[in-house]
Amino acid sequence: MTIGSKLTRRSAIATLGAGAATAAIGPDMAGTFSPALANTTPASKQAPGFYRQKVGDMEVTMITDGARTMTMPENFVRNIPRDEAGKALEAAYMSASSMTVPYNPVIVKTGGKIVLIDTGNGQGDRKGEVGHLLPNMAAAGIDPKQIDMVVLTHFHGDHINGLRLADGSLAFPNAEVKAPAAEYAFWMSDENLAKAPDAMKGAFNNVRRVFKDLGDRVVRYEMDKEVASGITPFATHGHTPGHSSLALQSGNARLLIQGDVTNIPSLFLRNPGWHVMFDMDAARAEETRRRFYDRASADKVLVGGFHFPFPALGYVEKDGANNFRLVPTMWNSTL
Amino acid sequence: MTIGSKLTRRSAIATLGAGAATAAIGPDMAGTFSPALANTTPASKQAPGFYRQKVGDMEVTMITDGARTMTMPENFVRNIPRDEAGKALEAAYMSASSMTVPYNPVIVKTGGKIVLIDTGNGQGDRKGEVGHLLPNMAAAGIDPKQIDMVVLTHFHGDHINGLRLADGSLAFPNAEVKAPAAEYAFWMSDENLAKAPDAMKGAFNNVRRVFKDLGDRVVRYEMDKEVASGITPFATHGHTPGHSSLALQSGNARLLIQGDVTNIPSLFLRNPGWHVMFDMDAARAEETRRRFYDRASADKVLVGGFHFPFPALGYVEKDGANNFRLVPTMWNSTL
Repeated sequence: MTIGSKLTRRSAIATLGAGAATAAIGPDMAGTFSPALANTTPASKQAPGFYRQKVGDMEVTMITDGARTMTMPENFVRNIPRDEAGKALEAAYMSASSMTVPYNPVIVKTGGKIVLIDTGNGQGDRKGEVGHLLPNMAAAGIDPKQIDMVVLTHFHGDHINGLRLADGSLAFPNAEVKAPAAEYAFWMSDENLAKAPDAMKGAFNNVRRVFKDLGDRVVRYEMDKEVASGITPFATHGHTPGHSSLALQSGNARLLIQGDVTNIPSLFLRNPGWHVMFDMDAARAEETRRRFYDRASADKVLVGGFHFPFPALGYVEKDGANNFRLVPTMWNSTL
Repeated sequence: MTIGSKLTRRSAIATLGAGAATAAIGPDMAGTFSPALANTTPASKQAPGFYRQKVGDMEVTMITDGARTMTMPENFVRNIPRDEAGKALEAAYMSASSMTVPYNPVIVKTGGKIVLIDTGNGQGDRKGEVGHLLPNMAAAGIDPKQIDMVVLTHFHGDHINGLRLADGSLAFPNAEVKAPAAEYAFWMSDENLAKAPDAMKGAFNNVRRVFKDLGDRVVRYEMDKEVASGITPFATHGHTPGHSSLALQSGNARLLIQGDVTNIPSLFLRNPGWHVMFDMDAARAEETRRRFYDRASADKVLVGGFHFPFPALGYVEKDGANNFRLVPTMWNSTL
């Protein structure tokens, strides 16, 4: 018996969304299948979205803020036809027209401090897809009051909005906030706001909303100088003017937190020449991306990516001369 | 500054084990790194190892029993040189001489029943690497007494030993136990035990230990006939004489639980012609493997693998004419 023989492949994929098509394992392997189930099972909760990884003496906890599934915007990949981007989504077992974008802040226990890297989308998402950072921190046994330092890679909303709760108060009341000096200077410049295209004024105003009354509580950091014990920022500009990645090093162990060197890997790590609509200097972002992944793949260094699928840790490997592939790390049940 | 310039690549990899080599991101991206940290951080727990996935109306919970990291046995891959297997481990970011083997039972809520597929290694592992099924079930909110049915794919110890607690009592006291009829007949045959080579007598005796007083509480199932609502076994013999996989189907949604069609994917799904030492009929197991993955890749059907890295769900895709690659599913934070 061939399963799903009455269904076209297209309708099956449309029904299933994420790519689990009806399938026949061939008459020799096929069983007898019930066409549908009368019973529905009660809703259960997903597992909490945190994952721990030792990096030498450091304890790294990847914490997901969730993921948004959305129709791919027409110009999401600016420099290739939409059909081609759709094919890349299909090749990654999504549908050609919709995509899923995960968001993954990181917590690092290092040198007696607890450091949060990027803060996610904040509270109040109507669909409940994102804003999971605080509940997932709670599941991981980390109280927001324990956060000693927040380090930001750049000032896009999905990285900074979680600094504040829905009521506008600070989500991490005891934390020093560290931001790339160049990033802070760019977004807080009234001159830059005045000359920004209308489509970008919202991003400028959002930065002001988040940082408005923080003033000197925001410590501006420079590249290549440690921000916390074993955590050193390095320049990966292009996505934004001051976009920074973070190198974690303890003894010989090493992890690179890339920030937004790419958006979702199934499009932009696979094809580093593709320009996501959010890259502010697309040519420079591409150059950064190629340089970063050339080295990460040659050195086989573990990379954490804000937009990688949770737990958002993997190795980057070459796929042909110009493309790459993300190989997720194996889940480790013990620390 | 080039990081780790004083370390040879070999020593770095040896120190780090799982492949995070020291790395230089190039002078233009390099920061300043502390050579070592004075502080150590307090030990924390890993996240619980369960993951939920809807398959139509069914709720599937992947539950890891843990993973063993071990020196690769000399003849682990019987039909290729050990060096070549070691290179495949390295290509998968393990070390050439050691490998990690995960174990992942599955719980399915279907038709008002809670069904456990395979049971893991059981309690009492001295190193604490495995035997995590029961604590991870507790984290997922599932009481062993709630299990209505245990379905076994085959009778190797890592699949059946979890049927009993360390004291010999039944771990799932209210469960009906279902086993492939051909598998049961093979292992319970006194004639087969008598003629088995010495190296296999332990496996025969282990089956008797587990099933000794269960008698007719073990329901023997046939291929291609539903064992529970929407769960249908199909023959994937070769690994053992009665080895069975399970097709889950609800509406148009579908998931194949492969059992041990492969051991770890980085060796045997990548190279389906490689024969793991545990395949009892290696030629038949290879033929099964190729047929299974040819169809799974063509149909893009989601596959759950007992020895896949947790959460042990992925798509199988062709890599050249004869090899395959496992693409893990994206973690979904919401159900």
